[in-house]
Amino acid sequence: MERLTCLVVPAAGEPFMVVPRLELPAAQASPAGRLGLEFLAWNETEDPFALVARRVAGVERVAVADRMWAMMALRFRDALPGVEQVAAGEVMRRLRMRKSAAEVAALREAGAAIDRVHRAVPLLLKPGRTEREVGKDIADAILAEGHVTVDFVIVASGPNGASPHHELSDRVIQPGDPVVVDIGGTMPSGYCSDSTRMYCVGEPPADFLDYYGVLQTAQSAACHAVKPGMTPEAVDAVARDLIATAGYGEQFLHRTGHGIGLETHEHPYIVFGNHEPLEPGMAFSIEPGIYPGAHGARIEDIVVCTEDGSERLNLTTRDLVIVEH
Amino acid sequence: MERLTCLVVPAAGEPFMVVPRLELPAAQASPAGRLGLEFLAWNETEDPFALVARRVAGVERVAVADRMWAMMALRFRDALPGVEQVAAGEVMRRLRMRKSAAEVAALREAGAAIDRVHRAVPLLLKPGRTEREVGKDIADAILAEGHVTVDFVIVASGPNGASPHHELSDRVIQPGDPVVVDIGGTMPSGYCSDSTRMYCVGEPPADFLDYYGVLQTAQSAACHAVKPGMTPEAVDAVARDLIATAGYGEQFLHRTGHGIGLETHEHPYIVFGNHEPLEPGMAFSIEPGIYPGAHGARIEDIVVCTEDGSERLNLTTRDLVIVEH
Repeated sequence: MERLTCLVVPAAGEPFMVVPRLELPAAQASPAGRLGLEFLAWNETEDPFALVARRVAGVERVAVADRMWAMMALRFRDALPGVEQVAAGEVMRRLRMRKSAAEVAALREAGAAIDRVHRAVPLLLKPGRTEREVGKDIADAILAEGHVTVDFVIVASGPNGASPHHELSDRVIQPGDPVVVDIGGTMPSGYCSDSTRMYCVGEPPADFLDYYGVLQTAQSAACHAVKPGMTPEAVDAVARDLIATAGYGEQFLHRTGHGIGLETHEHPYIVFGNHEPLEPGMAFSIEPGIYPGAHGARIEDIVVCTEDGSERLNLTTRDLVIVEH
Repeated sequence: MERLTCLVVPAAGEPFMVVPRLELPAAQASPAGRLGLEFLAWNETEDPFALVARRVAGVERVAVADRMWAMMALRFRDALPGVEQVAAGEVMRRLRMRKSAAEVAALREAGAAIDRVHRAVPLLLKPGRTEREVGKDIADAILAEGHVTVDFVIVASGPNGASPHHELSDRVIQPGDPVVVDIGGTMPSGYCSDSTRMYCVGEPPADFLDYYGVLQTAQSAACHAVKPGMTPEAVDAVARDLIATAGYGEQFLHRTGHGIGLETHEHPYIVFGNHEPLEPGMAFSIEPGIYPGAHGARIEDIVVCTEDGSERLNLTTRDLVIVEH
């Protein structure tokens, strides 16, 4: 919000919530109102940054939320001269990265919900429909299956599938199109789902099948490789090496995965250069892709590192789903 | 986006666009692709902040987008040691605040679109429906009347009307409820609409009518007061003084208005303490409110400062609209 609304958590002392006075009733009525927090309401003509600075006077370092607007962070910098500013994500990552049993259960529930949506996709994918029309129905299904928000819906047909982050377009789905369906939402628990499956409307192109098998093998191998002590870089390499050996290394242009929890993308990132060993409770996607140009493919599961290996939270078939109408 | 995607505009030299390599096709297919910009694609294992820092080496000051995530701004701070960081909004505000004739025309078109939605509201407001149900229909109408996005829908009935930023709830609208309807969206031009009108389902409460007339007078007086050279603070005072004189000063707890354009809230803010004189082309809301508790009211028009006065861009009646079914 353009008016500063923020939770302040001192390392010593009680947390408090800063809200514009006109938002006070809404803030008190929100879940935050049930936490017994002090609410510090500021008036339209006050400087809320100065207000916070006075309350935390003497601190040496302040962490600001990763996604706080820069204009707010800069106002805090000016209100707190000489105080070091860091990103809260770095402070919170140890807490966020390793999920408790209850958090894993919430992610498992999210995985089951998005799996139900994937099971319905073949009914929605028809030649002659646009990606946008199919995407709208999928968004409705994401909500109907128990999510409270639709976070993203990618329906990338034919050549659009070669752009890893293509979302939706008015392209009409053609017979023979491979279609990337990468979808996710947030559950009432606050935890997120994210799963990608591949569909083909009718007979798939022969050159698609050439690399789809490679991708399926690589994705599965990376999922099975996960265990405590392994580095994210090594998990990435399992998928990447198999794809490169098959001659598609240049067409796998993104990292293998990202952590997931209260946000769709969080630590740990499954990427070259990340040497921080996996620990039980870490949850992340394993989603290699191959994007040659005329079409592309990606397969994605959420995986949790367990005491002795891994558990996949998405369980629908990873075979190419051929849709015939 | 969590992967740095940003436009870099050097004070001297050509602008360029930094994008993750996997977003390159989408970026090139976007309107940015038609600007003849250089695209600097970075690979998953590169540090895009260092990449930008090398390209702008030697600068003394960098402005970051107001809403850039703090984690990004802090990465730029670390990649550019000794370089002053400021908020781009302060650099851009002179450009953004004063609208050209074409921009005013776009805002006028946005105003006409949201006016059409307000004209349809009496058909949707019925006792027994929830705020959320009515809000859903209004959101559909916002799109049907030509907006490309629904930016906000406030339907605040009865006591919810006393919280200025209440949005939607499952409260069932009761006979005799005053209802605040504050709605807006973004047009294909990129320019935003924002208008508030008051409705009452059946006979309004007597104590509501007591202050509604005061509010209507104050809102109208502030709109008519707008002219070049006047300060935003003085415009705010016109509305505030009339409301205070009638005894409702304590119940008008927010500023009188905000600038509008490519964003719903931008400079100039019509607030105590803003002494920067109005100029022709400045566009902003005039939206005083009175919020006694059992119900509340706000009336809002977008107003443009002209060469010799002002033009209102919302033209539906500001009288209380009594809805009988």
